[in-house]
Amino acid sequence: MPVDPLRAIANLQELRALTADDSGAQRVAWTPTWLKARAWFQDKLNELPVEHHYDAAGNSWTTLEGESDRALILGSHLDSVPNGGWLDGCLGVLAGLEVLRSLSEEFHRKPPVTIRLVDWADEEGARFGRSLFGSSACAGTHTVAVDRVRTDRDGVSLEEALRLCNVDIDQIGNSGVERRNAGAYLELHIEQGPVLERMTLPLGVVLGTKGVERHAITFYGQEAHSGSTPMGVRRDALAAAAKLALEIRPIARSHPDAVATIGSVKTFPGIVTAVVGRCETTLDMRDLDPKVLASMLTEARAASERFAAEEGCTVEWSKIWSIEPIFFDPRLIEFCDESIRETAGASHKLPSGPLHDAAEVARTGIPTVMMFTQSLAGLSHNKAEDTKIDDLKLAVVAFDRLARKTVDWLSTQRQGG
Amino acid sequence: MPVDPLRAIANLQELRALTADDSGAQRVAWTPTWLKARAWFQDKLNELPVEHHYDAAGNSWTTLEGESDRALILGSHLDSVPNGGWLDGCLGVLAGLEVLRSLSEEFHRKPPVTIRLVDWADEEGARFGRSLFGSSACAGTHTVAVDRVRTDRDGVSLEEALRLCNVDIDQIGNSGVERRNAGAYLELHIEQGPVLERMTLPLGVVLGTKGVERHAITFYGQEAHSGSTPMGVRRDALAAAAKLALEIRPIARSHPDAVATIGSVKTFPGIVTAVVGRCETTLDMRDLDPKVLASMLTEARAASERFAAEEGCTVEWSKIWSIEPIFFDPRLIEFCDESIRETAGASHKLPSGPLHDAAEVARTGIPTVMMFTQSLAGLSHNKAEDTKIDDLKLAVVAFDRLARKTVDWLSTQRQGG
Repeated sequence: MPVDPLRAIANLQELRALTADDSGAQRVAWTPTWLKARAWFQDKLNELPVEHHYDAAGNSWTTLEGESDRALILGSHLDSVPNGGWLDGCLGVLAGLEVLRSLSEEFHRKPPVTIRLVDWADEEGARFGRSLFGSSACAGTHTVAVDRVRTDRDGVSLEEALRLCNVDIDQIGNSGVERRNAGAYLELHIEQGPVLERMTLPLGVVLGTKGVERHAITFYGQEAHSGSTPMGVRRDALAAAAKLALEIRPIARSHPDAVATIGSVKTFPGIVTAVVGRCETTLDMRDLDPKVLASMLTEARAASERFAAEEGCTVEWSKIWSIEPIFFDPRLIEFCDESIRETAGASHKLPSGPLHDAAEVARTGIPTVMMFTQSLAGLSHNKAEDTKIDDLKLAVVAFDRLARKTVDWLSTQRQGG
Repeated sequence: MPVDPLRAIANLQELRALTADDSGAQRVAWTPTWLKARAWFQDKLNELPVEHHYDAAGNSWTTLEGESDRALILGSHLDSVPNGGWLDGCLGVLAGLEVLRSLSEEFHRKPPVTIRLVDWADEEGARFGRSLFGSSACAGTHTVAVDRVRTDRDGVSLEEALRLCNVDIDQIGNSGVERRNAGAYLELHIEQGPVLERMTLPLGVVLGTKGVERHAITFYGQEAHSGSTPMGVRRDALAAAAKLALEIRPIARSHPDAVATIGSVKTFPGIVTAVVGRCETTLDMRDLDPKVLASMLTEARAASERFAAEEGCTVEWSKIWSIEPIFFDPRLIEFCDESIRETAGASHKLPSGPLHDAAEVARTGIPTVMMFTQSLAGLSHNKAEDTKIDDLKLAVVAFDRLARKTVDWLSTQRQGG
């Protein structure tokens, strides 16, 4: 039986009805609404010849046993940010479910290789600020010491929230056993950016995920009375930060795919009657080329020091987080490109700015690729997030093609090796 | 008896010991520490031939009856901001007390005109955001409808806090009866800015208080993913705000005494991984010349609209508050200038950027002037706020001289009129 894209779309709509309110999707990981989504997903497996279990990190694994133990893994995540969209994450899980169903029917329950579908736990990190939680545990790049003490807005610790979902934070590394026999990993996701829409293409091949440099940059000036302090004697921390907010743009624009963002600015004391004495900002820079990324970081740091000096301020940098660029598998990139061209006529290869669970999988050496489908207006993490129904249909069909090409490749490998 | 500046300074130190902690002065209006400061002040009146009462707005009035009902009012405020300094406000009250004491001794209890000392209630507005509370009530410019519902951080309303201090918010306008027979108002205050220190002058004459235009300016762009949104398609509300933060500086600098400050910037969603979709800022602009102030406002508004357009954003302005420039009395300005020159050798005339209770008094038509004493490093609203002891001594002596010149003037007026 060919894959049924309409059933995937109907399931997405059903999940939205179940887990969204007027403000958008509320499937925040480790919350009752997320658990409800997962229970709903498990119900969908009832008629399928599959085994299901949760691993030590709370990842949900659905396995269709094949002739070989060698496994093709399809994956994404059901969790969302608060007030999120109807496609981010769950598109990949529910398209994967239809591919699994189609393959089980096609091969009369037993395809040549094992097919697995994973719903990673807490991709978004929305509640505790730790994204890629489940996939990093599986990849062995988890950071329990740091994460254990993370708390949500209500002061609940991540450790405690996990315990309520039957996950022991000290055991999450055991999720790594799921990588056994993994031959390839495929993930379908919405682009969350405007590139494909601007090219009027429904689908694209993801080359890899950009490296990220994420830093907190604080300028220290001198708090002063806004009425009594002449302009010429001020040491205005906001002025230095404003210069940096503008300067990171030409720094990024001098490279074709690079981005640089100041997403948060906080002013202290932050009142209408005081010159800003301290200004805290965050900088996020990304590129697929590690040399470009390193050069951007150097330029931004030099600019911040120049601006601080110009304004009689000082500046301090503190790294929040960084990750190197992660490149997907060249063979799977070609399979993905072929699948898209066969389905939609034209394809495009692009890097992913956002991180995805696929990056954690690729880091372990498992051949990995992602397929993007167009996002309308580049919006995501927002209830306005949307994709044309026709594009969603093409996405499910192309992803199914990609899975079959990969099954063929893995079964050939098995026979060859 | 000549005025005793050392007693004023000893009182300031005593008040600090009583009402400051390691973080600074804690005499926030309508709190127990403020009430303690006021009770301490009342104790200081015990040996003086004065009448004391609180008026309908909670202002503290101490009256030394003179030959005439015509009154010279000396005033300032005992309240402070949280973590405030040891001089802001209370210098004027405690210097005034020494002038009152000296005049009562000089004239054997009955000077030619009545001398009154007022400690205005809640000059700072630190707890409820309503500054010049008591003086505006006395001046008849109070705004009960707006202020009644103000709440502090704990949700206590201003109305409720007043009631606990025996002030009925609906009656505060009755404070206006205290203006009866007022002939002149004098206020000594620290400069809270760096002008006198840079001129190495201990004292200055205040020409008036600058007009203030205070606005909330919000830029609306498009929230977008920091990783997936190319630089060229962003509508970054922070970029527009950053341009404005830099542009207000040349706008202010093109006028000799003007200041313009963006004191608060808030970014939304304000996270490291999102382009800023909305940026809320506050602008505070001040000048003594109403035409200059109006022109600055026009320039800033035009700049904000230009920057919004450049960044694909929109901008909205909302007035927070404004006040016209208020000029002090030319005759009293000359008395003050003479008193300073006679005491310290040299004087300087400057506008006040910060507002003061004196501005509310001057608005009612009562001849008013302020004297400033140097602030070290221009600091105030901070426990580091300080003034050299020698300058404080000169300030008390010069303020006493000013009071005597004004007494002479008022008694001459009386005889003449």
